[in-house]
Amino acid sequence: MSFLRGFSLIFFLGVLVTSSFFSNVKAHEYPHSIHLLMPRSGSAGHKIEGLNCLSWRLAVETNNLRDWKTVPEECEGYVGHYMMGAQYRKDCLAVTSAAYDYVKTLSLKKDGNYVWIFDIDETSLSNLPYYADVGFGVQPYNATSFDEWQKEARAPAIPAVLSFYKKLVRLGIKIVFLSGAHEEFREPKERNMKNIGYYKWEKMILKQPSESHLKSVEYKSTHRTKLEEMGFTIVGNIGDQWSDLIGANPGKRTFKLPDPMYYIG
Amino acid sequence: MSFLRGFSLIFFLGVLVTSSFFSNVKAHEYPHSIHLLMPRSGSAGHKIEGLNCLSWRLAVETNNLRDWKTVPEECEGYVGHYMMGAQYRKDCLAVTSAAYDYVKTLSLKKDGNYVWIFDIDETSLSNLPYYADVGFGVQPYNATSFDEWQKEARAPAIPAVLSFYKKLVRLGIKIVFLSGAHEEFREPKERNMKNIGYYKWEKMILKQPSESHLKSVEYKSTHRTKLEEMGFTIVGNIGDQWSDLIGANPGKRTFKLPDPMYYIG
Repeated sequence: MSFLRGFSLIFFLGVLVTSSFFSNVKAHEYPHSIHLLMPRSGSAGHKIEGLNCLSWRLAVETNNLRDWKTVPEECEGYVGHYMMGAQYRKDCLAVTSAAYDYVKTLSLKKDGNYVWIFDIDETSLSNLPYYADVGFGVQPYNATSFDEWQKEARAPAIPAVLSFYKKLVRLGIKIVFLSGAHEEFREPKERNMKNIGYYKWEKMILKQPSESHLKSVEYKSTHRTKLEEMGFTIVGNIGDQWSDLIGANPGKRTFKLPDPMYYIG
Repeated sequence: MSFLRGFSLIFFLGVLVTSSFFSNVKAHEYPHSIHLLMPRSGSAGHKIEGLNCLSWRLAVETNNLRDWKTVPEECEGYVGHYMMGAQYRKDCLAVTSAAYDYVKTLSLKKDGNYVWIFDIDETSLSNLPYYADVGFGVQPYNATSFDEWQKEARAPAIPAVLSFYKKLVRLGIKIVFLSGAHEEFREPKERNMKNIGYYKWEKMILKQPSESHLKSVEYKSTHRTKLEEMGFTIVGNIGDQWSDLIGANPGKRTFKLPDPMYYIG
């Protein structure tokens, strides 16, 4: 009983923090209660015997688990609380702090052509309002409803990443957004990004129809190689998927943001 | 108050699990109480302002933080409880479960020359009894006392890894231990490994005096490349450090075990 009371308190504090996270989104638009959101049908979920959700998340974040399709059903509550609570935000901040500590060690020449690569979804912006409505990754990916959400251009920034972006811009490092989002969503994506504070960039590379057959790691490697060939030096690279950070020309340092909701290979 | 009581219960359960972990070590030899072990001088530790220890550990495990020398002082309690409690063991088990799920997907030919690479320290065996005595990584690495400990050959196995090793042996996959431990410790290392259940291997590669200048990632890459040149196929590779798992010929799949106690680059 004592534990449950403690847990309720922590959850309450988490909600307070969460509401400040979506500070650019009107509170009444996302009146989510995680517990209410959990589907009890279990039709979409898969169960893994004896699964420990903390271990599952660590295995995901360290790239030990690959090619997984959905969050295990029994971890929906865990993933939901993690994403909506304070720890996800703290974890993102720890990543960008480490990235900025690295940036401070660089000797940047005035005439240097330095680039930092940012992924977009779950890196520069957060689709958490969408994922909160579809079980935090327990339900299989639904292109139709996700595309609808993308067109609304209402995704909030991840505050730590936006703050890091601004620091890089002030240092004169050029920003390249490299995303697997399709070219047809350029207008809402650019509008969304500008609305939440990403006010300038060197390039925003989105996936062309001719590239739709490419796996993310191939697609991103190809474009990073092109950037290097153009004379840019990729000093850093940040993303929520390992496929953002491995392959050819990953950048001098890579930074992995947490994402226990989905996997892109 | 209710939280403290809950925490005490969890800690008590953790100690119960821990005692079964060191099942091959006589209980009275390691009468550790984490709280008693914490040095209060703080002379060795470094502090990081506003640090969240869960975020720090995640940043370590995802290779966002590199070249760190010691565990931040304020995370000694967190790291100690994690390592001595149930979660570390569960996390290790999740890694080897993922590895075995991968092994089951392999089509192994009868005449195949398949190898799985195991790191030794904090992978095949655990130096936790040693690290519990030196602040779980808060104190700087002390070669003298660690070498003493190595010579005692009393390190227990990590149960999940030993169990995984046995499964691979039964499947006919050859075992190569590839460790940065120095050749001069071969006798106690081999004795320790045999005592705890690693009863056969193809090779145990230890660092030669001529290799002492090499960084771990170079040293391990070189030996993996040699193995491939000899005709072995490295089907998998497991270690607690990213330097075990990156570089040349890492293996068809790599598996990262947790280790928040030290960093080897």
